[in-house]
Amino acid sequence: MTDNLQNCALSRRGAKMRASEIRELLKLLDKPGMISFAGGIPDPALFDVQAYRDAYASILAEDANALQYSTTEGYAPLRRWIASYMNAKGVPCNESHILITHGSQQALDLIGKLFIDPESEIVTLAPTYLGALQSFSAYEPSYRAVRFANGKAETNITSARILYLVPDFANPTGETLSVEDRKAAIELAHRTGAVIVEDAAYTELRFEGESVPPIAALDAEMSGSFEDTRTLFCGTFSKTLAPGLRIGWICGPTALIQKLTLIKQASDLHTATINQQVTYRIAADQFEQAVAKAKEVYKVRRDAMLNALRKYAPKGMEWTEPAGGLFVWVKLPEQLDAAKLLEKAVERNFAFVPGGAFFPDGTGSNYLRLSYSLLPEETIDLGIKKLCELVAEEMA
Amino acid sequence: MTDNLQNCALSRRGAKMRASEIRELLKLLDKPGMISFAGGIPDPALFDVQAYRDAYASILAEDANALQYSTTEGYAPLRRWIASYMNAKGVPCNESHILITHGSQQALDLIGKLFIDPESEIVTLAPTYLGALQSFSAYEPSYRAVRFANGKAETNITSARILYLVPDFANPTGETLSVEDRKAAIELAHRTGAVIVEDAAYTELRFEGESVPPIAALDAEMSGSFEDTRTLFCGTFSKTLAPGLRIGWICGPTALIQKLTLIKQASDLHTATINQQVTYRIAADQFEQAVAKAKEVYKVRRDAMLNALRKYAPKGMEWTEPAGGLFVWVKLPEQLDAAKLLEKAVERNFAFVPGGAFFPDGTGSNYLRLSYSLLPEETIDLGIKKLCELVAEEMA
Repeated sequence: MTDNLQNCALSRRGAKMRASEIRELLKLLDKPGMISFAGGIPDPALFDVQAYRDAYASILAEDANALQYSTTEGYAPLRRWIASYMNAKGVPCNESHILITHGSQQALDLIGKLFIDPESEIVTLAPTYLGALQSFSAYEPSYRAVRFANGKAETNITSARILYLVPDFANPTGETLSVEDRKAAIELAHRTGAVIVEDAAYTELRFEGESVPPIAALDAEMSGSFEDTRTLFCGTFSKTLAPGLRIGWICGPTALIQKLTLIKQASDLHTATINQQVTYRIAADQFEQAVAKAKEVYKVRRDAMLNALRKYAPKGMEWTEPAGGLFVWVKLPEQLDAAKLLEKAVERNFAFVPGGAFFPDGTGSNYLRLSYSLLPEETIDLGIKKLCELVAEEMA
Repeated sequence: MTDNLQNCALSRRGAKMRASEIRELLKLLDKPGMISFAGGIPDPALFDVQAYRDAYASILAEDANALQYSTTEGYAPLRRWIASYMNAKGVPCNESHILITHGSQQALDLIGKLFIDPESEIVTLAPTYLGALQSFSAYEPSYRAVRFANGKAETNITSARILYLVPDFANPTGETLSVEDRKAAIELAHRTGAVIVEDAAYTELRFEGESVPPIAALDAEMSGSFEDTRTLFCGTFSKTLAPGLRIGWICGPTALIQKLTLIKQASDLHTATINQQVTYRIAADQFEQAVAKAKEVYKVRRDAMLNALRKYAPKGMEWTEPAGGLFVWVKLPEQLDAAKLLEKAVERNFAFVPGGAFFPDGTGSNYLRLSYSLLPEETIDLGIKKLCELVAEEMA
């Protein structure tokens, strides 16, 4: 095939993307005895399997059309439920502003397809979610980094297509943007002509403190009308209910949702009909309880990880203290390379994700990402102890 | 928003696509009393809802991981089942050559993303499936038409990225490519450097006659090894089991499937986990029976439509006589415009799809597509009578 493949003229989109290498790594790490902080997926013990079984059964008892083609925009009752969920967060939208997607990863892909031409400029924090970089990179943009501090955007960018942000408990850092910094992001977007992609994957998983209004809500306030906003809020049920059904959404102004709906139609016609109906029932019945249960479990694990870091970390090792989400972000002394460290870690049966992959420019080799989502407290304590011992040895 | 939207620099992919206008039309036509030949979707009476209910229930009785993230390539038992299905059709592949997609529409999108750059040349029959045009057009190719006759490709094309074909009971014509013409297509692909996209959506729905080997099987014969083929076979369960779960696949040589898997990962991570597991159970238990039942129902309706056309059609009206699938393709006298005819048809409570949308170059205004998939025989007879009367009046 090799010869023949060379004869196939591939689009440059055929290029290998780095995020996939990380996912390959995660597969390798998934072996018995391994204490893996590398993942970042929900704990399946939190899935209410019985409720899903009942929902599939009762929907299929009623209606063969649950197995039929359906509309691209999505199942109307689910879109209405999401619109009222968004209203409760201060986003003045209705169901016509909601497009159901196959998870928020597809939301990012559809938005990339609509906005990115080769060399279009995308502005992100550095580090940022590598799956977003993988999704956008298919359309060959260039990346520019921005920092927000004290309500100011530190950048000299004058024009951009997309400003991508994970405002709450970001992957990988666990950090949350302040109201002032969100407003600065909105000003930057309006000034540069960019749309803001607000990736809200972890927003519901706040363990303590006051929740910060979504960028979409602040944009509506500042713009005067929801139709004048330029924020596309990307939501998902993957971190609150269950990821395996692949149900996410985009909430945005009518003119953009209509264009994204056409692009979704060309991409896969529509999101799986029955999974939308089931997700609607589960969300309507028990969204709050599911979220409360998840936060309770993850908070205990977050605490175990932070306590262990305080207990065992050598001087010179720093980390974030997230108020929610699934991740702690660790900074090692400059001279250490997390990718090299991982090789030694695996020999000692523990693992993490080296930080470099989260930087669009490939820097950040002395950072690493830890997730506490899947491990019991004692295991977290033991794994962090091993990590800190290894780092101390490497520093010596 | 309008002003603001003008300030958002959209990629040219934001342009509206014609296939979506047809889908809007279909929604309008979906009203009581309307005899619609416009659709082309499976009859939901054919879905074995009980079997799906049992499959969801038993999978969720066993394993919470049916609701968890899963691998991009897809559920291994389903990929193995598909590989043996492909083997039975003469395609010498194994599970590593199968990528599960959200329906065959996503298969077309992923292939477009891998192969098409702006102005890349795509070769199709004219007319061809408008959903494929919609999917590929997102990547801004140019289109070239080809005709196959007596084992020869009628074209002067020397280079192309994709040769797109629906070889069995094509949408919209219902026609099937002969073995000789398939071989000519393979020669054309190898000569021009194109990959063949073999859209097999209707292949299983053969009512009579000998089935023709897939292009992928003939390519493997001619190329000597499956890894040397340049055919991507796109399959779907939408026309055999049920479309609402959105389960399709791509079967092709390793080097291309690996690249398509990376693109799928960037597009939506993976296909819904539980729907793959359910589809595997249904396919393993009853694929043959489901196909036999569907063919029995659709054959009767195809016969009713062809009989009615023979009975009522005025001189100068021509049509195809498909040996399977869901569509009959009608040619009206040159002076008639099917789009204008549709307006009068809707006033008389029947409908069809005007043919123009199926031609990449926008010709074909005197063609129309009829589907018999959803209507009982008497209704088909009545609707065809109305159509033929209207055509006769217009010709007078």
